[in-house]
Parts: sequence; C-alpha cells; structure tokens
Amino acid sequence: MTITGKHLIAGKWCGTAEHGFTAFNAATHQAMATTFADASEEEVSRAIVSANQAFTSFSSLAPQKRAHFLRTIGEQIIALGDQLITTACAETGLPTMRIQGERGRTVGQLGLFADLLEQGEYPTTIELGDNTRQPLPKPDTRLGYLPLGVVGVFAASNFPLAFSTAGGDTASALAAGCPVVMKAHAAHPATAELVAKAILSAIEICELDPGVFSLIQGKNYAIATQIITHPFIKAVGFTGSERVGMILQQQIYQRPEPIPFYGELGSINPQFILPNKLNQQAEEIAQALVASLMMGQGQFCTSPGVWVVVAKESDEHYQRFINAAAQSISEQAAGVMLTPAMCHSYKQAVEARAAVNGVELIATGLSGREQDCSAALFATNFATYQQNESLQEELFGFSALIVRCDDIEQMLSLTNQLSGNLTASIHALDEDLSLAQQLAQPLVHKVGRLIYNQMPTGVEVCASMNHGGPFPASTNIRTTSVGSEAIKRFQRPICYQNMPPALLPNALQS
Amino acid sequence: MTITGKHLIAGKWCGTAEHGFTAFNAATHQAMATTFADASEEEVSRAIVSANQAFTSFSSLAPQKRAHFLRTIGEQIIALGDQLITTACAETGLPTMRIQGERGRTVGQLGLFADLLEQGEYPTTIELGDNTRQPLPKPDTRLGYLPLGVVGVFAASNFPLAFSTAGGDTASALAAGCPVVMKAHAAHPATAELVAKAILSAIEICELDPGVFSLIQGKNYAIATQIITHPFIKAVGFTGSERVGMILQQQIYQRPEPIPFYGELGSINPQFILPNKLNQQAEEIAQALVASLMMGQGQFCTSPGVWVVVAKESDEHYQRFINAAAQSISEQAAGVMLTPAMCHSYKQAVEARAAVNGVELIATGLSGREQDCSAALFATNFATYQQNESLQEELFGFSALIVRCDDIEQMLSLTNQLSGNLTASIHALDEDLSLAQQLAQPLVHKVGRLIYNQMPTGVEVCASMNHGGPFPASTNIRTTSVGSEAIKRFQRPICYQNMPPALLPNALQS
Repeated sequence: MTITGKHLIAGKWCGTAEHGFTAFNAATHQAMATTFADASEEEVSRAIVSANQAFTSFSSLAPQKRAHFLRTIGEQIIALGDQLITTACAETGLPTMRIQGERGRTVGQLGLFADLLEQGEYPTTIELGDNTRQPLPKPDTRLGYLPLGVVGVFAASNFPLAFSTAGGDTASALAAGCPVVMKAHAAHPATAELVAKAILSAIEICELDPGVFSLIQGKNYAIATQIITHPFIKAVGFTGSERVGMILQQQIYQRPEPIPFYGELGSINPQFILPNKLNQQAEEIAQALVASLMMGQGQFCTSPGVWVVVAKESDEHYQRFINAAAQSISEQAAGVMLTPAMCHSYKQAVEARAAVNGVELIATGLSGREQDCSAALFATNFATYQQNESLQEELFGFSALIVRCDDIEQMLSLTNQLSGNLTASIHALDEDLSLAQQLAQPLVHKVGRLIYNQMPTGVEVCASMNHGGPFPASTNIRTTSVGSEAIKRFQRPICYQNMPPALLPNALQS
Repeated sequence: MTITGKHLIAGKWCGTAEHGFTAFNAATHQAMATTFADASEEEVSRAIVSANQAFTSFSSLAPQKRAHFLRTIGEQIIALGDQLITTACAETGLPTMRIQGERGRTVGQLGLFADLLEQGEYPTTIELGDNTRQPLPKPDTRLGYLPLGVVGVFAASNFPLAFSTAGGDTASALAAGCPVVMKAHAAHPATAELVAKAILSAIEICELDPGVFSLIQGKNYAIATQIITHPFIKAVGFTGSERVGMILQQQIYQRPEPIPFYGELGSINPQFILPNKLNQQAEEIAQALVASLMMGQGQFCTSPGVWVVVAKESDEHYQRFINAAAQSISEQAAGVMLTPAMCHSYKQAVEARAAVNGVELIATGLSGREQDCSAALFATNFATYQQNESLQEELFGFSALIVRCDDIEQMLSLTNQLSGNLTASIHALDEDLSLAQQLAQPLVHKVGRLIYNQMPTGVEVCASMNHGGPFPASTNIRTTSVGSEAIKRFQRPICYQNMPPALLPNALQS
C-alpha cells in the first residue's frame, strides 16, 4: 500500500505535501521517504464541520451497529498485515514483538467497547411514576446517556497504535457515538495513514457518514489550537508530556464554552520496597524493577521512575540491592528512542541529573551508536530528593532514581509530598503488611492505580482498570483513558421525564 | 437561638462583625438586626487547612458512619424548629410553605445519600487474577472510588436550604467523604448560621473531626478567590448566575492544578407547545405555564422562560393561547424578590426587554409596593428572537417570552440554535407525536432533562434525576447537582491491583 502523505478528511484523501514534513527512522535518525502534508486551516475546519454533520446520524446509530463498526475497524487493521508492523517499527524504533503486541491490544480494545455496546450501552436507572404519591405525584424519570459531540484526539508518540489513530481515545469516543477528528503524531505519520485507511474501509463497509472520522497530518502548532478551540469540538483526548498537555489545557481555557480535556500527562510511578522485602529479596526485586524499567526503553507512561527504600547507607541488604540493580543495568543493551529529539532530550536529562549535588549515577547500560541511548540508574537520599524539584519530575526514558530514606517517617513524608501519579507499587513480604497499610493510606490519594508486589508496566485493558490519577498524571482525575470505563468520558447524563415510549431510546423502554 | 454573625471554623465560632455586613428583609428591603463578619484571609485559610487535616480521618470513615452523620444533620435541622423557617422567610421573601417544603427536601436529600451509603457506597467491579492466562497472566484488579479532598461550596441565593449550607452540594460532598468549606450567601447569612449550628451538633454527636465542615460568612470577593485557588481545595460546587459562575471559572483556570468546577448557571428552559396541543388546549396549557412561572416569583433554575409555538399571528388558537396567558398573568399578585438588588435587576431587565424592537409586553401582573415586582409576559416572533441575543438569555424572575414560529422549520431552527439548558418540555397531544420525535432529536443535545407534558419546575430528588446540562446550564456537562448521582462529582476511580485483603476497602473484599 503506497503511503500518500495526505490527510483523510470525511472520506477523501487530500492535502498537498509540497511544504510538508517527513518522519524519521528512529533507529537511523534518517528522514523517511514520504513527505506529509501540513494541514491548512481550511482542511482542519472541513474535518470538524464534516464530523459535526455526521454527529446527527452517528449519535443515533443503534449500539449494535456501533459495535459492528468497532469490530470492523479491528478486522481492517489486521488486514493491513505486515506493512503496519514494519512501518510502525521503523517510525518508532520499537521492536516487532512489541508492535505486534500493541496491535493485539488495539484490536482488543475495539472489541472490548464492542462487547460493552452489545451488552447494553450503559446501566439504566428507571423510576416509574406514581400519581398517588403525597404531597406531589412522582413523575416517571429515566436516566440515559448521550454522546457529547465531536471529539478531538491527539495521538501519542509512545504508543503508535494503542494510544493513536484507532487507539483507546478513538475507540471509546466512537463507542460513545462521537465522531473523531484525529491529529496524527508527526513521529509516526505513515503508521497513522495506514490505520486511517483501515478505519475508512470500515466506514465504507458499515455504510456510515464518512465525516465520522478524519485524520489530520501536520507539524504546525496552529492545527492543535484550531482543533481544541473550535466550537463544534466537545471534548479532547491527549496523551503526552505535561509541558505540551498544559499548553493545550491553557488554550482550552480560552474557549467561551468549557469542555472536558482528558490529558494523560507525566508520571514517575514510585516503587516502595518495604524493609523485609529489601532484606530478604534484594536481588530479585532489583532485577524485576530493572526489567520493568527497560520495557520500551522506559518510554511507558507507567515506567517505574523512582524506587524508594528504607535503609541506612551502610546496611548490607541496601548494598546488595544497589549492587544487583547496578549490575543489571550495566548489562542492558543500548536502545533506540522514539524520535531523534527524544534521544537528545534523554541524554541531556541524564547529564543534568548526574550533575545534581547529592545524586550519584551508580550505573549506565551498555553504550551503542551515536543514535542510541543507554539506561541510567541514579541513587540519592531523602533530603536531596526533597530539596530538588527536578528529581520529582518524570525523566522520560529508561532511567530510574533510587531514593534512600533513613526511616519510615521519611518514607511517609515523601509519600505525602508526592505529586499525582498514574501508579505506585508497594513491594512487601507478609511481615511488612502493617507498614504497607500505613503507607497505603496516604498513597492511595496520590495515584490512579495502587499495585502490590507487581510492576506498574503492563496496563490490563479491562472493566476494573483505571489509567489516570491526580494531576499531573491526568488533567481530569475522575476518568480513565484505559478500560471500558473510558467510554464515560464522552457521554453525559440526560433525564427523560414522563416520556412516551416513542421518544425513549431502546435502552430506557420499560 | 441567638444569631451571632460569626463564622464556624473547625468547631469554633469566630470572627468579628465590626466591619461586617447585614442582610436585608426581602419583603421590606430594611437591613436586618445582626451584623455578620466578613472573613479574613487568615480565617479562610484556617477553615481550609482544618478541613484538609480532617480529610485523613473523614475519608476513611466507614460509609455507615457517614450515613449516620448525614441523617443526624437532618435531625438537627428539624430540631432548629420554626426559627429556621421564619429566618429563611424573612431573609429571602419566600413563603412559609415553600421554605417548609424546601426544608423537607433538604432533609430528604441527606437521607437519600445516607441510603446510598448504606446500600453500598458505589458499584464495585472486581476482576480476579488468572495466572494461567496466555501470553501473560491476568492480574487481580478491582475498581474502587475515593473522595477527592476538601470541597469548596458556594450557597445559592434562591434555595436558602436545599442548595445552601446543608444543601445538595454539601450533602453529596460529605457523603463522598470530602470535608466542606462553605461560603454562605450574603443574602441569607442568618439561615446559614442556623444550619451550621445543626451541622456542628451533628459533628459533636458523631464525634467527628470538627474540621469536616466550616461556614464562612462574608461579602468580600477575595474570599471566593482564596477558596477556589487554594491548593487544598480539590473541587468546587456553585449555583448562581452565569456572570458570577464564569468569574469563578476563570479564577479556577489560574490554578496550577486543574480541579473540577461544578457550576450550575443559567437556563431559559424552553417550552415547546406543539400545534395540536395549542389548538385543542390553548387555555389549559397557557394557565399551566403561568402557574409554573409564578413559583418562587420565577426564581427557580428551572423556571419556564421561553414558550415556543408554531402558528400564524392571526390563528384563532394562537390568539386564544395569548389571551389566556395574558389574562392569567394580569391576575397574578405582585411579589417579593430574593434581595433588593434582584428586585432592581428584574425591573431593569423587564424594562429593557420591553424596549426591544419587535417584542411586545402583552401582560403584567398586579402591581404592589415599591419593594415588590410584578410578573411580565412578552411575545415576539422567530426572526426577532433570532436577531436579539439578549432575548436568548435568562431573565431571572417571573417573566416569560412567547416566541411564535411561522412553521416547523423555524421551530427546528430555533432548537438547533439554542444554548444549553437544564430542561426543556415538549407539550403535545398524541397527534403531535411524530413532530415531537422530530423535535426531540436535536433538543436532547441541548438539555440535561427532557420533559413531556409536564412543567420543568419541581425537580424530583432521586436516582434517575439529572440537574445539569450543556453550557451555560452547567460548567460540567457530565454531572448532576441533584439526585444520588451527584455524589460522583466528589469521587474518583482508583484501581487496586493484586492487593492483599488487608489493604482493600471493605466494599472490594472478595
């Protein structure tokens, strides 16, 4: 399949790549062959207006038909075959197995929402009327849910499939009945084009209004501004850095009409290794943490960035832990980051961290070519951590910071001062249980997911998942971007009072 | 019980009324006897810090104990006896029956949330682990909900009990496990003090940390700014005008950490009277609309402000409708508005509307004393309505505007151009059903509650209620401020992964 470099706007491929941009091969840092169009104001506007027109029919499509559409998108993604895998691998530097797994997850997510729609789109609350009630009759009231309208979605750099063109935000918005205007990520535009082709095929198979999905290519920041400030846009989904996310948030604040902004931003995902665990399984836990850190070169939202232990520096088990972790890191192969820019930023951030007074670079991974990055493990103590705000911020990539607390009080104090996180893990033995309880009490209020004796990487896509959390993990603490609850971000309640059956949605019929 | 004019801050009555303010008797426009303190920065800060300290114990209080607290508040409100009724009536000008009813609703709301907590605080989703799953084991994941933290609540002018000190926002926040810092409304500070006394008694009876509820008196705008921008405040509830609500919203936007702002703002609550209904029941529907409009002198969020009909001006049934409505309005007694300022604003707004070209003042209610206001009924046509933005805005008080459309297309066009509303009603006979269906399709996307053949006033407090809607009805389309779903505004999801039972909340035990 030829990559055209064009946008998909309401069923038509359009745009001129003359003044466009190219993506880079993440492994070689060389520009790729295709030039991609940078969307014009008129093109973005056309996508949004078409989506808004499509809302009328799409919002009232039977849930079963929406389910069929989602499954068909999944089938068409699979039908793209190996080209999707090789393209995504080249654009992101992620290994084949990982991209294959991510494709499975993406298709699985579409299926999860399809299942949900088939089982009953939402829980229904029906309270029948009672004309005999005193002092006033009770009206018949029924609670239903409606889609919000057109949703703007921004693809993520680090998940070219599962958090991008047909990823979680798109799948949940379409499931809710909302048309999607998708801004592709400039780091993997060819992957986006392929997935958009799959979505277009599904639109044609299901005979839907083509305005229901548009893909906008571009590197121009004005595109983002136009999307999120457009009056027809009723919600925005974004996965990316805190810096970019907050720029978008500020622009959304300029709108006359407030709309929800679902930004999944940074997270350091603190790992607490309790004393008995450290004492008895220093090596095992060190190696497990390194393995989790290495996934996708640490470019996971849930990468374990800070490891907190309680020990004196001279403690033998602390030394065993440090040595095992350092040894393991030093054996890790160099790796390719998602983009040349991220490679550069990572190297700079590691250098900056190494220069912080009181922070020790205790191990680096194997070095590679100029275009490769190496893992880096740092250690510091509670006081230094507390005094340096930069240590409390996410360092995107396969670098972690061990924070040694002298005592439990320091660990609890660190917990109370944490910013919001997507996840935290408590690593403990049975003997640590009462301390774990003590720690969990403040820790739950800092995270979207609390984990016991498991690693934070590997987010289960299911009904009980929460992938969100207090700011800056998310701009909207009350929602998840992963799992079936994610659909709720794009629905809102409506009460139908005293409605005749002909005016009620099927789900709310008696 | 003596009214002291003080704040209640973490169990202590404090503040000096020396440079304070007085409330006004709504019926006489005379200043009331008590001077109320205007809170200082230090006092507001103390309330918020105490609330945040109370969060640790209150957020982990068993749901049954929170339910008991809510019921006890209700009992203590009843125990205030007639003083509460006479005080609220004097401060707001609302009649005794209405305030008695509102007290019942307030106590009922507290009981509704208590019931909810006793039946199971939230729906639980538990997905057990599966170590045999391929290619990866499935972790045990359980979805729970946590309170957000300290909630700032602003009392409403028009519901001194049900949307004020122990009203819906406070009840739902406390039910969720969130301490409340309440800013009393300067129009009914003595009512607020009495209700705060009831809450304090309940705190003492239930032996809770007194930081769980504070009442701040004041007229100084800086108090609001301090509350909503304080880092310990994690959500804000507000019921009031669009103008004030959007000032608060803009201030919340200045926070480094985004928090939810639940502003219930203006609404014109359009009433659509379909052709057969108009033809066959012109007089009945006119009288019913007037009766709904007159409730609380039109100072209800759900007051029917715009009545849309399809008719030629010369149509006999349109004339019957107009005449019946005008006749009914002209018989309505003059009434007292909530405050002298609102009385003034209402008179000004009626005058301004009467001056709009193409708008006819077809009837006014009986006139009264200088301090009274009279009902006012206007009529216009579709073109004039469409051209004048001011006609599409809420006119707070017992005034309505009849908008005559020449044909169905105009009515549908008007519907498509509507701003967001709390409610809309369709008034129809069986013969109107297919038109009702056609109208409902765009109309559902403009309202939080769609009503058939009933009036919008009288909001049922129940599980299937939605009191919210698209902006400017609400700043947060996804939530309701009335009914048991209102608790969700102050809770957020958390996923517990692989937790030992000792670290799980009771609700999530296997």
